[in-house]
Amino acid sequence: MTAISLAAPELEVQTWFNTERPLQLSALRGRVVALVAFQVLCPHSVAHAIPQARRIFETFAPADVAVIGLHATFEHHDAYSLAVIKAFIHEYRLKFPIGLDIANTAGPIPHTMDRYNMRGTPSLVLIDRQGLIRKHAFGAAEDLRIGAEIGALTQEAIAAVRPAHSSAA
Amino acid sequence: MTAISLAAPELEVQTWFNTERPLQLSALRGRVVALVAFQVLCPHSVAHAIPQARRIFETFAPADVAVIGLHATFEHHDAYSLAVIKAFIHEYRLKFPIGLDIANTAGPIPHTMDRYNMRGTPSLVLIDRQGLIRKHAFGAAEDLRIGAEIGALTQEAIAAVRPAHSSAA
Amino acid sequence: MTAISLAAPELEVQTWFNTERPLQLSALRGRVVALVAFQVLCPHSVAHAIPQARRIFETFAPADVAVIGLHATFEHHDAYSLAVIKAFIHEYRLKFPIGLDIANTAGPIPHTMDRYNMRGTPSLVLIDRQGLIRKHAFGAAEDLRIGAEIGALTQEAIAAVRPAHSSAA
Amino acid sequence: MTAISLAAPELEVQTWFNTERPLQLSALRGRVVALVAFQVLCPHSVAHAIPQARRIFETFAPADVAVIGLHATFEHHDAYSLAVIKAFIHEYRLKFPIGLDIANTAGPIPHTMDRYNMRGTPSLVLIDRQGLIRKHAFGAAEDLRIGAEIGALTQEAIAAVRPAHSSAA
Repeated sequence: MTAISLAAPELEVQTWFNTERPLQLSALRGRVVALVAFQVLCPHSVAHAIPQARRIFETFAPADVAVIGLHATFEHHDAYSLAVIKAFIHEYRLKFPIGLDIANTAGPIPHTMDRYNMRGTPSLVLIDRQGLIRKHAFGAAEDLRIGAEIGALTQEAIAAVRPAHSSAA
Repeated sequence: MTAISLAAPELEVQTWFNTERPLQLSALRGRVVALVAFQVLCPHSVAHAIPQARRIFETFAPADVAVIGLHATFEHHDAYSLAVIKAFIHEYRLKFPIGLDIANTAGPIPHTMDRYNMRGTPSLVLIDRQGLIRKHAFGAAEDLRIGAEIGALTQEAIAAVRPAHSSAA
Repeated sequence: MTAISLAAPELEVQTWFNTERPLQLSALRGRVVALVAFQVLCPHSVAHAIPQARRIFETFAPADVAVIGLHATFEHHDAYSLAVIKAFIHEYRLKFPIGLDIANTAGPIPHTMDRYNMRGTPSLVLIDRQGLIRKHAFGAAEDLRIGAEIGALTQEAIAAVRPAHSSAA
Repeated sequence: MTAISLAAPELEVQTWFNTERPLQLSALRGRVVALVAFQVLCPHSVAHAIPQARRIFETFAPADVAVIGLHATFEHHDAYSLAVIKAFIHEYRLKFPIGLDIANTAGPIPHTMDRYNMRGTPSLVLIDRQGLIRKHAFGAAEDLRIGAEIGALTQEAIAAVRPAHSSAA
């Protein structure tokens, strides 16, 4: 896992599902974050990324790893109503928080997707306890490797992280 | 395969995709028909029935077997716009004709689904060369068995079928 | 399925498993035969052909389709004792008859494999009710297509077959 | 992952494959060890454990994680010649070291399997950099979880390990 020392940009989300209040990455410091960008009508998102996100959510303790879905609508804008995304979450029994990326009036790429320079969906971003991007992958990712990378990130000392977080914030 | 000697009810479709003109079962006599009812947000439809429908379409000669998709919207009515179904067909590279079942003002079950007494999605209906329903299954069906049943139906003599069709029409 | 009008050569087997008496193709006329050649240490045999053979065995009525396994030992001769094949059949819970092809003193290819000109393992041979080879495939074969081909063969009239059988026997 | 603070017993192996000299766990201190016990004729070993072992071998750097296969022959003793195991390794293209557990004259369970109290095959044992058993699982294990556990173990400081190793050796 190549260390990318970029601070993870804050999420810009217009609507949240599966969470009582909006999530902010800055409030998740101290936890590893698995950010899974997907689209409901993207075959690889549905066949691979969403089941993998569910497995990550079920495998790690919430205190260690936060799983966040991001519906990054960058195509078929006319198809993606709130009702579609809501029904998808219901049918696939997804329990982790999912945010709908904010549409961009200047072009098809929504704001969070643009900030993260994602190439498409599915995309997986792993953010460490300090809020730094440590992995940024487009397409299907192998469970063993992703597990290893998240497992390694969870072992980075929180004590060592907190000061870095404080100074970075 | 239990022989069900019901004549297959005609399809009632409000919009067709992947065909220049509306399909009618009555015009398909002499061919075996695999009718696959699905919904875009139904996990088993997407994971099993749609890939199987594609394999049926690719395995059999069009002169022998017609594959027809039917989007039987019986739930999440607010989610299923034409744009959703169109984008799904595009993203999953589906090439066989797909019809959108006509909504029912009297209840959630659309007209064709109601006529066929389908229990939900996915449902698979096999119709023989005479236009009789020979299989009616709800849920995932095994490729080997479905292949065997379609293969057997294709062997039923067309000559013997045509008169039956004439008298039945 | 290209019709290959070769009569299926008789099996030459040194040891049978899962059958009280030796099988002969000539005694199976009137039934479709799926002959599955495999080796215990051949990855594609174990991952694909053996599970498929089991599905064929479970899907079709024995009166219609006979499944026969053939251990065609053409490599690693020093590894394949009777005990290995017996333990494999036990561990994989195989219930259909399996024969051990007769070793050839003149070369590595055993007799039945040689007679059928098999290219390796796994190989699948479909024999019709008359005893004619109708399919001969090397490597993994799709369930839907195999199902279709067997299903079609089962529909060929037994009445029409029997005379051919009589004259051929 | 429950920490099991047992020191991993040394391996007792009669024959090694894929390594020029016999392996000893004591010589692997400082590395995480994934010990995969299997049998060639055990369906779950072949379908799950061996492919997973290969993925572990391909995912982690050898300096971090050593993968060791152990053929723990506890049944079908008459079937498992050296030739069988050698042919299996060849056919499945396995590149990591594999040892053949030493048969026990007192019973069916071979020595290493007995020392580790393995319940059967496949079994997976994860040993940390200090030589302590940290996981001991029987049956199929999920890639994501195994990846996470190995990934976490690789992050344990080697510096902190070495003294413990010295004192333990």
